[in-house]
This record gives sequence, structure tokens and C-alpha cells, in this order.
Amino acid sequence: MDTSLVVVSNRGPITFEETPGGERRSRRGVGGLVTAISGALRERGGTWIASAISDADRAVAASGEAIDAGAGDGIDVRFVAVEQETYRRYYDEFSNRVLWFAHHYLWDPPRTPTFGEADADAWDAYTDVNRRFAESAANAAPDGGIALIQDYHFALLPALLRKMRPDLSIGHFWHIPFAQPDYLGLMPDAWAQGIVEGLLGADVCGFHTDRWLQNFLACVRSAEGLRARDRSIRFGDRRVRAGVYPIGVDPEHLTEIAAQPGVKHERSELKRWLGDRRLVLRVDRTELSKNILRGLRAYELVLERRPDLRERVVHLALLQPSRRSVPEYREYMEQVQRETERINARFGPEAIRMEITDNFPRSLAAYSLYDVLVVNPVFDGMNLVAREGPCLNRKGGVLVLSRNAGASVELAPAALTVNPVDVDGTARAIADGLDMGEAERQDRARKLRRLARGRSPARWLDAQLRDIERARAAGA
Amino acid sequence: MDTSLVVVSNRGPITFEETPGGERRSRRGVGGLVTAISGALRERGGTWIASAISDADRAVAASGEAIDAGAGDGIDVRFVAVEQETYRRYYDEFSNRVLWFAHHYLWDPPRTPTFGEADADAWDAYTDVNRRFAESAANAAPDGGIALIQDYHFALLPALLRKMRPDLSIGHFWHIPFAQPDYLGLMPDAWAQGIVEGLLGADVCGFHTDRWLQNFLACVRSAEGLRARDRSIRFGDRRVRAGVYPIGVDPEHLTEIAAQPGVKHERSELKRWLGDRRLVLRVDRTELSKNILRGLRAYELVLERRPDLRERVVHLALLQPSRRSVPEYREYMEQVQRETERINARFGPEAIRMEITDNFPRSLAAYSLYDVLVVNPVFDGMNLVAREGPCLNRKGGVLVLSRNAGASVELAPAALTVNPVDVDGTARAIADGLDMGEAERQDRARKLRRLARGRSPARWLDAQLRDIERARAAGA
Repeated sequence: MDTSLVVVSNRGPITFEETPGGERRSRRGVGGLVTAISGALRERGGTWIASAISDADRAVAASGEAIDAGAGDGIDVRFVAVEQETYRRYYDEFSNRVLWFAHHYLWDPPRTPTFGEADADAWDAYTDVNRRFAESAANAAPDGGIALIQDYHFALLPALLRKMRPDLSIGHFWHIPFAQPDYLGLMPDAWAQGIVEGLLGADVCGFHTDRWLQNFLACVRSAEGLRARDRSIRFGDRRVRAGVYPIGVDPEHLTEIAAQPGVKHERSELKRWLGDRRLVLRVDRTELSKNILRGLRAYELVLERRPDLRERVVHLALLQPSRRSVPEYREYMEQVQRETERINARFGPEAIRMEITDNFPRSLAAYSLYDVLVVNPVFDGMNLVAREGPCLNRKGGVLVLSRNAGASVELAPAALTVNPVDVDGTARAIADGLDMGEAERQDRARKLRRLARGRSPARWLDAQLRDIERARAAGA
Repeated sequence: MDTSLVVVSNRGPITFEETPGGERRSRRGVGGLVTAISGALRERGGTWIASAISDADRAVAASGEAIDAGAGDGIDVRFVAVEQETYRRYYDEFSNRVLWFAHHYLWDPPRTPTFGEADADAWDAYTDVNRRFAESAANAAPDGGIALIQDYHFALLPALLRKMRPDLSIGHFWHIPFAQPDYLGLMPDAWAQGIVEGLLGADVCGFHTDRWLQNFLACVRSAEGLRARDRSIRFGDRRVRAGVYPIGVDPEHLTEIAAQPGVKHERSELKRWLGDRRLVLRVDRTELSKNILRGLRAYELVLERRPDLRERVVHLALLQPSRRSVPEYREYMEQVQRETERINARFGPEAIRMEITDNFPRSLAAYSLYDVLVVNPVFDGMNLVAREGPCLNRKGGVLVLSRNAGASVELAPAALTVNPVDVDGTARAIADGLDMGEAERQDRARKLRRLARGRSPARWLDAQLRDIERARAAGA
């Protein structure tokens, strides 16, 4: 029989909201990760521990009632409710301003980061929240169970949990890039070492690509002076494995939701707007690492160099609002909007159509219609847009893909890969995508679709569980 | 008999200027590097090839007359004169904006760098200048001689020269940090690969510390897919050695020039100004990598936290103007001046005294007087201020030193090392330096002086020549 699980992630499979009428309503996550983990929890049994994010979540957490994750799932979900100021420090300040910036190379070292007392508070909050989640996981886990810890929000948790419950097998998965030691070393030593030692509490540390894994090993060597070779680290009397588990999308699920009426409606609307013009698309969160500014300038270069394309192409940027409480994000988005206005003043009011909105059906509709999809992050752990787009596209669309996105490891042979800081090269790739002959377009699109469909979240999870169980057997 | 040399560096041992009266006057470099290389050239014979920088240099180069490097040196100096616009692209644009920024981690990746056509021109100019210096070196070098190529201005030169003159033994020394592959990869591939392959044209690649050497090896592995281990790289049918040669100062020379009347005059002047106040000193070029902004803020924090020190301490920042033609430097220095004004508005008009001037005697005078010397670069290949200061200080002065300066490898045990982005930690180190008891101060200062004096430029050069000759013997 399979061992039962405890999953820890910041965002859980379900969240609650209070209706204006005072009723409590639940909303279930639809992403592939939620579906995969839910599936494993249904099969094996276990508990999913997540942050109480909304006020209604907090009320549910306080009431102590069992959470029904809906759809008759029978999954045991537990919320950890943290006071709002502590949550803000843990989530906005430490996870998203310090760790996210470090691992995506988002600082401007002559000026940022600077670390002061507010940041020390953020580190304390991060430590505190990691400890509280570890306690919750320690309480929920059955004897000899498996704990699956998700992402950079919980880097300290593996070591904390191991201390509380040495009987558990622990896997940690790091969903974002991992920086190289010089750059990680821009954090205070205690933090960088804490992160590395926290992760080494796991039996298996997972990453999307070998590149991020090797960077992690380099940081282990540099911060701890440990030997780390061939994806294996000797840490005290234990052996820690590192593994590569690229996540993908669930193509059946994607096709299913793309067939829903809301998506069809958006598709008709977009087709009407497009007319016979061709579509260069980007779909992203409003995020510094996504390289929106250079993407806009690359498109501007295309229009500048190719008057013949000006009336025949449009650029649609669908941007989902993100982290608006972080000042760096507000500034960045103001700059993005100014650039858009500048370019539109130059090339016509709708050269670029930017929509800052959270409308997933519209993104799915746009996926089916693009001629060129631009995915040009400066750095990105994986990037699922690069997989979702090709799964749903029906026009032989070309993928322009940053080589610093984890997705490029598998998709590069069928995409036009670019160095994301090379605006000129990105502009050439977009133009090449528009100029490409139909036969090559279709051929590449077919390959892309096959590659993009090849990594389901279920497979991602199974591979990790297999390695964790193998590590346990080897250690026994 | 020793093999004769060809030295290539951008700045040579001598430069000329036209007096208002139309006379031509020469000025000899006084740095330790010039002295060491001049010494070796005197001993072994050979030629020093450098850029014609001033108009008078160009006139000398055009006239074809032999250059007397003065002091009866009998060193053969040759200028390579490049048209001014090409020189600007090679020097300002490519060497100092692209390579310098890449290797000191000075970009702001959500926004910079972006590479366009102007940068392609800069790369072409860089390639062109490297080729012209290679030709000049190929012409000057005797059969089976040794070529010593200096620094990031000439990364392509080793490979170019090897092609022209396979009989030569070639050493390259990289005086700045070397970035890790993720960051170097923010340059266009062709450039990053060109740099790495250019350097691999040498028999011996030298760095100040093992940290920069290991980063170079990581870039070799990543850009070329080569095996690089134990400071040795197999490249085609050759073996390339990498070595660590920390440069230092020549303490005798330093003591000698510090005894000159100009320095004595500056010292009296500074002592009068200081009175019985204690001195926190920084001496730097006006350079983004030197971390002047955070240094000022750290000093502000000291004043904020320690009202008892406000009347008793002053901060003198001696900044030598640098690269004022590069927009990033002008912006940075405007920011530095605004910060200084803000802090002085808060704590008194002379809380910080900033002098932006090229006055080496004044720096030497200030070295003898500091209580705390702040050397906090974000990244720095070596940093000689951290060695010059302790050599000349007479007050048991404390060195606050960035752990990202190459100098920290040897000086750390006697300095207060800081993470340069940690303003809070830097403030604490400055305060600790001021609070430190006399016995510990003197003890550390003694150790520092011994360590700082331990690496003369002559020793630096001898070690390289020995390894180049050893490599030649092994290859023969």
C-alpha cells in the first residue's frame, strides 16, 4: 500500500469568500498542480496544509470545522492562519521581495538590495511561519508518512520538520530558478545559509531543470563547504538527493476547459477584433522577471524595420495583475504602461493592445489564435505559458522562447530561442516567426505540441514520490 | 638567459601632453604595476605596447620616433593609435559598459542591459582594436618570446596572437572579478563565447583569487562545454592553465612617495581640519562597483544610532573622478552627491566631507590618519586601497572590508569583513571599529600591515613568468 502524504504549500486547493449576503462560498483551484496533488491525496490519503489567505479562510481556520475541498474530493485540507502583518512580512517582504528577487536576478546591485531592520523583521516572520507550518505538518503526518513541501515560501521547513518528526520522508520542490552563489551571496549570510540548510533537511530536493539543480549544488558547496556531486550531498550523517522533475500541463484538462462556453465567447470576440490581422501574443503575470519592457521594445523594432507589417499585425499583451502591494512592481508596471503609450503614439493607437486583467478564459482563447507567442522571461523556473499555448494553438503558431526559461530545455528544438536581454535578437525572432513559411510553421507547431504535452503534473508528482520512496529504502 | 617579453596593456607606462607653449612633455606612471613590469622589461628586454591616449600620444605614435620612457629606463614603448570614435567604442562602450558591468554584476536585469546596433558597433570596435594590438605584438615579439596581456580590454588578443605567432608563450592576466555563467550569459552568446575562447588562446590565464578563477572555469564549461578541473582546461590539442596571482603594493615605493613634501603638506592640512575628531575614510574612484551610496548610508546609520559620536567623528570621502563620459556614472555620482547633501542637512554641514578630485598625495596623507577605513565594493577584483591604507596608517586604524573584494582573501583575518549590500552590518562594523579598544586596534593593524605588505607586484609578475615558462617546458 502507498504511504500517505502531507502536502504543504502556501496556496491551497481551495479558498473561501464571504458573499455580500454574508454567505460563505468556496472556490477551487483549477491549475494542473492542484489537480495532480489532489489526485495523489485521493489515492493515498493524507492532508493538505495551506495558508488561510482570505478573511473567510481565517474564519474557517478559526472555526475548526472540516474543510470540504469540493467535488466530493474527501481531501483533508487544513488552513494555517497567520496574523496579517506577519503574513505580509513572510509573503510580500521575504518570499517575494528577497527570495524571488535573489533567484531571478532582479536586483540592481549598485543600489539594491539594502538590508535594514525591516528586513530582519521579514526574516523573523519567514522563520516563524515556516515553524508554524512545520508544526502543523508534524501534527497531521501519519507514522512514517511522506511530506511534500512546495516552493520557496517554505525553504526552512524541511529541516524544521525533520527535527520534529525524524520518521517522515521529506521532499521539497523548488518551483523557481536557483541563483548562483555570487548572487545568492548578496543576501545576509545567515539567510542564505538558513535557506540552504533548511532545504538540506529534505531527503529529495526537486527542481525543474538540471541548470537550477546545479546552481543549488554550487550554493551548497559555497555556503556550507560541503561536497556535492552527481546530484547527491553528504550532510552530516545523511545523504540528500537532488533531482530534476520538469512540470508540464495536463493537456486533457486544458482541452476540456478550453471548450467551455466562456472561452468560446472570448474567442469570437477576439476573432472579430483581429479581422485578418495576424496576432503576436504575450500572456504573463505583471512581473519583473517576465521581461515585458524588452518584449514591447522588440515588437517596436519589428514595426520600425518592417513598414509592410504595420497594418497587418497586432500585439496583444494579456497581463494578469500580480503583487501590486510591492512598490517595485507598481513602478515597473507604470514603466510598462508608459512604454506602451509611447509605442502606440508612434505606430497607431492599437499597435499594442494591453489588457491588465485576470481573465483565464480570454488567455485560453488567445492561445488558440496566435501566430507568434512571445515568452521571453529574464529568468523563469519553468514557464507554463510556453506549454499551454502550443497545446491549444490552432494556427501553426510560432513560439519565441527565452533560453533562460526552464521550458526551453525541452521546447528549444521546436521554438525560436532568444537571449532575453537581446532586444534586437528578440525582434528578429518575432519577424522570423511572422515570415516563416506555412510548412515549417506547421511542422514546428506539431513538434511543439508533442513536446509541450509530454510532461503531465501527475508524472511530475509520481517521479518525485518514486525517488522519495527509493531514498527511504536506501536509507533503511 | 631569460626570455624576452612583449607586454600589452591599454594604459602604458608613459603618456605625453602638449604644454600651452607647444612643448611636448611626458608623464610616467607611478603605480606598482608599472614599476614591476618596467623592472621585468629592463631585466629581460622587450617591448611594451599600449594605447595612444592623449593627442600628444597620437602625435608621438604618428612620428614613429622611439619613445623614451624616462628615468633612463631604456624600455621600448610602442603606442597603437586608434581613431577616436573606434577607441571610444572599444574603451567606453565595450570594455567599460559591457565587460565591466557584466563582471561586477552592475546591471538591473529587468531593465538593463539591452543590446542594439550601437552595441554591435562596440563589439566590432573591440574586436578590431584587439586585432591591431595583436598585430603590433606579433611584430614586436622575438622568436619564442613571452607575451603578457593585461586585463579585460584585451580578452580576444591571446587567441588572435596565437594564430599569428604560434611560437610565443602567452599569459593573460584578468584584473577584475569574473562573473558566474548565468550573469555572463546576459551578454549575447557570440560575445561571451568570444571572450572565453579569446582567453583560452593563452597558455596561462591569471586571476587575483581562486574565486574569480573558479568562475572563469565555470564559464568555460558553460560556454564551451569543455572539461575544466583543477585549474587546467583541455582546449583542442592544447592545455590551458589557470592560476591565482594576487597582486599587492610595493611597500618601499609607497613609503618613499608618502615621504614627499606634497604629502606632508596635505597631512598637515588634514590634521588641522580634523582637530581631535576621529576620521572615517574612504578613498575610491567614482565607480558604481565601489558601493559609495551604501557606504554613505551606513555612516548615516552610525550617526543616527550614536549621538555621542556626532561631534567626535568625521567622514572624509576622497573620490577620484572616473568615466564621466559614461551616462551611468554621471547618474550615479549625482545620486551620491544628493545623498551626501541629504545626510549633511540632517547631521551638520560637514558630517560628510566629499572631495571629488584627483589628488594622490592627499589620499596618501589621509591613509596615515584614518581611524576607520571603509572599503566596501559590491565586487572588486582585488582592491589596492585595502592594502595601501594599512601600509601607511599610523593610528592603529581599523579596516572595514567587503568580503567581495579580492583583497579579503588575505586580509580578512585582521579586518572587519562585511557583506557589502548589508548597510546595517556595515554600520555596525564602522561603529565597532571606532569603539575598539586600543590593544586590539594595534594588534589588528600590525597584522594587517604584515599581510598588506606581503604581495609585491614583482612577486606577482615573477610567479606568472615562472608558470608560463613551466607550461612551455611541459608543452615542449
